Amino acid sequence: MLARIVIDAVRPSTPTGEFPAKAAVGERVVVSADIFKDGHDALAARVRWAEGVDSTGVDGKGDELPMVDAGNDRWEGVVEPTHLGLHHFTIEAWVDHWGTWRHHVEAKLGAGQSISSELLEGARLLDVRAAALPPDQASPLVEAAVALRDGSREPGVQVGSAMTLEVAGLMTGPLWPSDVTVSAGHRLWVDRDRALTGAWYELFPRSEGGFVGTARRLPAIAKMGFDVVYFPPVHPIGRTHRKGPGNVLDAGPDDPGSPWAIGSAEGGHTAIHPELGSVADFEAVVAKAQELGMEVALDFALQCSPDHPWVKAHPEWFHHRADGTISYAENPPKKYQDIYPVNFWPEDDSDRVALWEACREILDVWIARGVRMFRVDNPHTKPLAFWAWCLADVQSRHPDVVFLAEAFTRPKMMAKLAEVGFSQSYTYFTWRTARWELAEYLEEITEGRQADYMRPNLWPNTPDILSGPLRRGPRSAFALRALLAATMAPSWGVYAGYELAENQPASELNEEYARSEKYELKRREWSREDSLAPFIGQLNAIRRRHPALQRLRGAVVHGSENDQLFVYSRRDGDDAVLVVANLDPLNPQAGWLQLELDRLGLEPDVPIEALDELTGNRFIWRGENPWVRLDPADAPGHVLQLRPL
Amino acid sequence: MLARIVIDAVRPSTPTGEFPAKAAVGERVVVSADIFKDGHDALAARVRWAEGVDSTGVDGKGDELPMVDAGNDRWEGVVEPTHLGLHHFTIEAWVDHWGTWRHHVEAKLGAGQSISSELLEGARLLDVRAAALPPDQASPLVEAAVALRDGSREPGVQVGSAMTLEVAGLMTGPLWPSDVTVSAGHRLWVDRDRALTGAWYELFPRSEGGFVGTARRLPAIAKMGFDVVYFPPVHPIGRTHRKGPGNVLDAGPDDPGSPWAIGSAEGGHTAIHPELGSVADFEAVVAKAQELGMEVALDFALQCSPDHPWVKAHPEWFHHRADGTISYAENPPKKYQDIYPVNFWPEDDSDRVALWEACREILDVWIARGVRMFRVDNPHTKPLAFWAWCLADVQSRHPDVVFLAEAFTRPKMMAKLAEVGFSQSYTYFTWRTARWELAEYLEEITEGRQADYMRPNLWPNTPDILSGPLRRGPRSAFALRALLAATMAPSWGVYAGYELAENQPASELNEEYARSEKYELKRREWSREDSLAPFIGQLNAIRRRHPALQRLRGAVVHGSENDQLFVYSRRDGDDAVLVVANLDPLNPQAGWLQLELDRLGLEPDVPIEALDELTGNRFIWRGENPWVRLDPADAPGHVLQLRPL
Repeated sequence: MLARIVIDAVRPSTPTGEFPAKAAVGERVVVSADIFKDGHDALAARVRWAEGVDSTGVDGKGDELPMVDAGNDRWEGVVEPTHLGLHHFTIEAWVDHWGTWRHHVEAKLGAGQSISSELLEGARLLDVRAAALPPDQASPLVEAAVALRDGSREPGVQVGSAMTLEVAGLMTGPLWPSDVTVSAGHRLWVDRDRALTGAWYELFPRSEGGFVGTARRLPAIAKMGFDVVYFPPVHPIGRTHRKGPGNVLDAGPDDPGSPWAIGSAEGGHTAIHPELGSVADFEAVVAKAQELGMEVALDFALQCSPDHPWVKAHPEWFHHRADGTISYAENPPKKYQDIYPVNFWPEDDSDRVALWEACREILDVWIARGVRMFRVDNPHTKPLAFWAWCLADVQSRHPDVVFLAEAFTRPKMMAKLAEVGFSQSYTYFTWRTARWELAEYLEEITEGRQADYMRPNLWPNTPDILSGPLRRGPRSAFALRALLAATMAPSWGVYAGYELAENQPASELNEEYARSEKYELKRREWSREDSLAPFIGQLNAIRRRHPALQRLRGAVVHGSENDQLFVYSRRDGDDAVLVVANLDPLNPQAGWLQLELDRLGLEPDVPIEALDELTGNRFIWRGENPWVRLDPADAPGHVLQLRPL
Repeated sequence: MLARIVIDAVRPSTPTGEFPAKAAVGERVVVSADIFKDGHDALAARVRWAEGVDSTGVDGKGDELPMVDAGNDRWEGVVEPTHLGLHHFTIEAWVDHWGTWRHHVEAKLGAGQSISSELLEGARLLDVRAAALPPDQASPLVEAAVALRDGSREPGVQVGSAMTLEVAGLMTGPLWPSDVTVSAGHRLWVDRDRALTGAWYELFPRSEGGFVGTARRLPAIAKMGFDVVYFPPVHPIGRTHRKGPGNVLDAGPDDPGSPWAIGSAEGGHTAIHPELGSVADFEAVVAKAQELGMEVALDFALQCSPDHPWVKAHPEWFHHRADGTISYAENPPKKYQDIYPVNFWPEDDSDRVALWEACREILDVWIARGVRMFRVDNPHTKPLAFWAWCLADVQSRHPDVVFLAEAFTRPKMMAKLAEVGFSQSYTYFTWRTARWELAEYLEEITEGRQADYMRPNLWPNTPDILSGPLRRGPRSAFALRALLAATMAPSWGVYAGYELAENQPASELNEEYARSEKYELKRREWSREDSLAPFIGQLNAIRRRHPALQRLRGAVVHGSENDQLFVYSRRDGDDAVLVVANLDPLNPQAGWLQLELDRLGLEPDVPIEALDELTGNRFIWRGENPWVRLDPADAPGHVLQLRPL
C-alpha cells in the first residue's frame, strides 16, 4: 500500500537511482524531496543519515538533521559530510500533530470561536508525549495538559497561556511511530575535496628530462598554484608501427613514439619507461609534488601497443580479424596501427574476469606507489559495466582515489560515465565560446540535476585540442579562457605550454597542435617575459581564497547590455564572487551590468564594495546596474569580491 | 552487472515508475528511451509490447515495433493501442553487426583501403544468420557469403556487389541472442478515447425539474456538441445544519440544501434524492443521453451529512473530537456543520478495510446503473493509498470507467493523483489569463513529462469558480475563454449558465457565484437570443472534425508582435489547426504573427490556405508572418485549418 505521506523526487540522486550521488567532505549537501500528504495536516521531516550501507550507521544511530518546507511542497535539509566513503540516507516525514493543533487553535481564536474541545485534544497530545519521556522532562507537559483541561471547563476562555507554553521544543518529532513515513534508502559517495576542487597541470615528463627533470620543474608549477600534476602514460612505448612526428607511420630510430602506444618488451601498464627513470625516480617525483602541496595524477589508458606483453600472454584479450591478425584501432581513413584496443568481452567469461582483474591490478600497483588520482583515457570506448565494477572495487578499498573521465563524447554517455562512478569529467567547455553558450553551459554543469553526480573539470586546452579563440590567438585569448575555466567550475586544468600561449594548430581542419608533443619532445622557454604563469598563479590564489570558487553549486548568470561581457557569480555562505569577463580578446568593451542582487546576498539600497582580486582596484557600486569597462591589454575581466559597505 | 547497452529514461512513464503511464485507444503513443553503448558499434532497437502484465501477450508473442534514432542517442518507436486495459512494454536493443560492418566497409572503400579481411568477416555474419533461417530463405545469404569469400581472395577488389546485396532485410534483428539488452518492464494503461477527449457540461438536475426535466434538456446540450453531462451529487441531502442560500446556517424549510451534504434518513451514496426521481428515472436519463451520443457522469463525493446512514451504523468511520462529538469540516473562520469528513484511517485496520470496500461498493452500484464516468470531489483530502487501490480495483473489472479528479490543489498533489490512477484532472486553466501564463501552461500540460500520465480537462467555470475576465465580464469574455478551453486541450467543460454569460460574483473577494446554485434552484432562460450556445456548438463541431484537437501532444506556441494575440497550433498527422485568440475581449487587436512553419508541417515557400472554421473565411498566406486582425464583436479568435495550396 502507498505510504500515508508522499516522499518523492529525492535528491541528490542519479537519474536511475542505481548508483550513489556524489558529495565531498566539507561540502554543504542539500538533501531535498517533494513531501506532502492528503488533507491539511502540518508535516515535519528530517534526514537520517550515516556512513555505510544503511542509515543506522556504525553506532546504530546515524545522524538526524531537520528539513524545512522551502515552498511548493519541496523540503530541504543540509548534511555536511566529514568522512570519506559510502553514506546512506533516508528521509522521514510525519504529521506534526502539535503544529496542526496550534495552527487550528490559533485560527479559531482569531475567529473568536470556542476552543474548549480543542483544549482537550491538546491535552491528549501532551499526555502522549509525556508518557514517552522520563518524569523530570515530562513534568512541564503534564502541567500544561492540566492547564488545558482546566481551561476547557470554562466556556469562552481565551487560554493564551496554552499558546505560549514552553513545551514546543518537547513536542517536536513524531508522537506515534506509526505516523512516520520513511523514504527508500539513498546512497551518497563522499570523496575528498580534491575530487570536487582543484587546478590541474598536464605535462609530458619526457619533455622535462624524465622524472628527475620533472621534479625540478615542479616548484614553478606549484608557484602557479596548481594542485594536481598529471602525466600522460609513463610506460614503455611499443616499437612496432611506432608513429613519428605529426602522427606519420614509420618513425625514425630516435622518434620517441606516442606514450599512448603502451607496452614493449620492457613491460606494460605497470612498468615505467626506462628513459623516464626508475620506480624510485617516480616515487621521488610523487614525493616532491607532495612536499609542494600538490599530487601526481597518472593516465589510465587501457590499450596496448603490438609489443605489449599481454599480446603474447593473452591473445584472447584482443579482437581478432577474420584473416587471423589482431585488430588495431582505426577510424577510416585513419589507422592507428601502433595501438590494439582491448576486447573487454572475450567469448569465454573466465577470460573476461581475468582481463578485468588485470586492469584493476594496474591501478593497485600505482596506488601502492603513492598515486591517488587517475585521468582515464577514452572511458567511453570501454564497457560501463567494467567501470562500474572497477571504480567501486578500488574505491571500496581506497576511498581517496579520484578518477577523471576523459570522455569528450556524446552527452548521454558523458553523463552515464559520471553516474556509474567517475569522480569528475572533462566537459564541452573547450567548445563553448559565445556568451549564450557559456551561460547555458554554466547553468547546466552547476545547477542542474547533473551536478548531483557529475563534477566538471574545465580545460581550455589539452594535447589533443587547440580550439576556438586559442587557434592562432593572442596571449589575451589565453588569459580569457583561463579566467573562465578557473572561475566557472571548482576544477580546471591546462596542458603545459598554455602559459606560453602556444597557438599553432596542426592545420586549418585539424584541432590538434602543430608538432604535437604526443609524438616528439618539446623544449620550452619557461622564463619568457610574456608568460601567463604569474596571471595563472593569481587565478589559482584567488580560487584558494574564496570558498565560493571551490563549490559547484551557487552559480548565477547576470545580465549585461553589452553581450561581449559575460557576467556570473558564485556564492558560498557570506562569500560572493562576481566575474565580469570580456569575451573580446582584441578590444576594450564597456557596458552597464544587470545584477541580481538578491542572489548575491545583497540589498538594493546598500552600497557595494567590489574589490577586484586581479588588480586590487576597489569600486563602490550602488544598485543593480554598475558600469564596467575592460581592456584586454590589462586583464580579461574582473574577479570581484562583493561586500555590502 | 550493468547491461552492455544502456536503455535509460524510458517514456511514457510516471515519475516514480510505480504506476502505469496512460494512453487511449487509437492514440499514437511514442515510446522513447536513451539507448547507447560504449564504442562505435551501430545499434538497433525495438519495442516489444502486449496486453497484460508482461510483454509476451496472451498469445505468448506480443507485438514488435521498430525504433529509430531520433538524435542525441534518443530512440523512438510508435505503438497504437487497440484494446482497453493494462499493457506492458519492454525495449530491446542490440548491436547491429551487419550495419556496423557495412558502415566500416563503406568507410574503408571510400578511403581506397583493402577490405579483404572485412569481406571474410561479412561472410561470417551472413553464415550466422543463414544458419538460423529455413533453407529457402537462407539461400541468398549463403550465396552472398560465397561471393564475399571469393572477393576476399582477390587483393584490392572493389566488391561493390557486396554492398548492394539484396540481403539487408534478412540481416535485421539480433544475430546472437546474447547481444540483446532488454529494458525493465513498463506498464501502460489504455483507456477509451473519452478519457482523453471530450466536452463536458455540468448541470444541477434539480434546477431542471429532476431527471425527467433533465432528460428534456438533453437535446439542447447534445446540440451544443457536448459528450458528457455531469451531475453534482444526486443523493438525499441532510437536514441537520442544512445550509440556506449563500451558504448561511439555518436553512428555511423549503431550502434544498447543498447536494454535497450527502445522506439522510432516505439513504446515502447509493440512494437517489426522491425529489429528483426514481432509479428508473435516473436510468432513463442515462439512456436518453446515450441515445443522443452523450453519457452521464456522476459526482463521487466521499463525505456525509450528519444524517447519513453511515453516521449511526459506522461511527468508527468518522473523526471524533475530545468532547465526544463528530468533527464537521471547518477551515476557520468557516464552518461546514452540514458535512462530516470521513476518517479513512480508523484505528482498527479492519474498520479501514470495511470503509474502503463500502466506498468502492458505491461505485459498483452506479456502474450497475449504467454510469461509466465519475467526477471525484476533492480527492486530495482522501488518502492516495485509497485512490491507488480503489481506482485500480474498479478499472480491473471495468476498464471503461473514467475518473476525473477535482483536485484544484497544489501542483505536486495534483500530479500525484494523476500518477496513482485518475484518468484526467481539473487544472489551473481557470486562473491562467495573461499570454505568457497561457503559453507556459499549454506547454506544461501538453508537452512535458506530465502528459505521460496526467490528462488535463480545462474548465472556464465551475459552480465554485467564477474567475478572471468572466467576473462581471462581457459575453465576449465568455466566448474567448470557451475558445481557449476547447482548443488548448482535448478535454474541456463548462458549468451550466456559461452559455448565458452569467457573470455575477458572490462578492469582490469571493470566487463563487452570487446566489450560488449549490444552495438554491436556478431557473434560466435558455432560449435567450444572445446565448453562446450556437458558438459553443460550433467549437465542439470543429473539435470533432479535427483529430489535431483530439490529441494531447503536438501543441506549439507561436509568436505575435501584438501580445494580446495568443497563437498556438495543434497537429496530428496531416491535420494542422492554428488558433489565433484575441485575449482582449473589449477591443479589436491586430498584428503580424510569427509562425513556426516547420512545426506546422508547412514549407516556407508554399502559399498556405488558412480556412477559418468559425466564420468560413478563407485566407491565402505566404511565409511565416501573416497579418491578422480580430474584433471581439465578431469572434474571439480564428480557428484555422492550414493547408499548403
